[in-house]
Amino acid sequence: MKFCASCGAAVTRKVPAGDTHERFVCTTCATVHYQNPKMVIGCVPEWEDRILLCRRAIEPRLGLWTLPAGFMELNETTADAAAREALEGANADIEIGELYTLYSLPHIDQVYMFYRGRLRNLEFSPGEESLEVQLFREEEIPWKELAFAVVAETLQHYFSDRRRGLFQLHHGEITRPRNR
Amino acid sequence: MKFCASCGAAVTRKVPAGDTHERFVCTTCATVHYQNPKMVIGCVPEWEDRILLCRRAIEPRLGLWTLPAGFMELNETTADAAAREALEGANADIEIGELYTLYSLPHIDQVYMFYRGRLRNLEFSPGEESLEVQLFREEEIPWKELAFAVVAETLQHYFSDRRRGLFQLHHGEITRPRNR
Repeated sequence: MKFCASCGAAVTRKVPAGDTHERFVCTTCATVHYQNPKMVIGCVPEWEDRILLCRRAIEPRLGLWTLPAGFMELNETTADAAAREALEGANADIEIGELYTLYSLPHIDQVYMFYRGRLRNLEFSPGEESLEVQLFREEEIPWKELAFAVVAETLQHYFSDRRRGLFQLHHGEITRPRNR
Repeated sequence: MKFCASCGAAVTRKVPAGDTHERFVCTTCATVHYQNPKMVIGCVPEWEDRILLCRRAIEPRLGLWTLPAGFMELNETTADAAAREALEGANADIEIGELYTLYSLPHIDQVYMFYRGRLRNLEFSPGEESLEVQLFREEEIPWKELAFAVVAETLQHYFSDRRRGLFQLHHGEITRPRNR
């Protein structure tokens, strides 16, 4: 950030009065420009014993497989975001269930959430950001070709919880990418 | 937003190529300025059968009582944020436990999360944003003077779960303030 979004003048870094953190502050109109982490929200779409994955058509990790997920937009709930991302990424109609995993990634200022979800039908197809979308049984998951550590961890928890017959919220922190 | 934070030129509203949503886009350097919901994170600080609340010294809801909470900062985890907010609001040293409530407030583009937490000692005192901080038993909670609907709902769930001896994640949506 170099310029004030309110008045167009230059910004500087300083700790505003009464604040605890350094911020971008406008040198002319004194507007404080806060920066905050972003939420990336998705789901684990189930159909019988299979899970829907999308192969990424965009960077980063083009060509690798992911659960449908993306940045939460304004004017929606976290569950809305999970359903929307499955629709955009895979044209998939999902009934969103419980919150299933929550990961903080402080090194990139993101918080990931994955919900459990159930496909309402099999009429899915690649969205603009996917090369292909496909259902996988546990033994078919392309573990070596998953796009993100949060996706690998979420799927590991999922299959482990499914075997023991008890799904619960998993909560963690990923401080740097482990997948590649 | 009126000006580009990268180059200082005017921005306009449009749907970038390949995007699904209208964004602020710079008329000169074409930078897309995404806007996303923010996380507000706090905890329910326990000491034996009592809960720590803070009376707000700042707007909005100056003079009303709240659980310690605030906007998540860059370079921290959600649990870090919960502990930091208790320290800033109440000089309270908290051991953060499980995620307890998660609320989407799409009308103001916020997502609230409250963790369970345990006070490590009784050396708390008002922080800069609090007029006073105090421990309350269930029957002492100032229900009519709580600052936010998310705080009231979180405390209602807390005492209800405590009575039945089982705490679980509560997940909801609040579409407009109910408290006043």
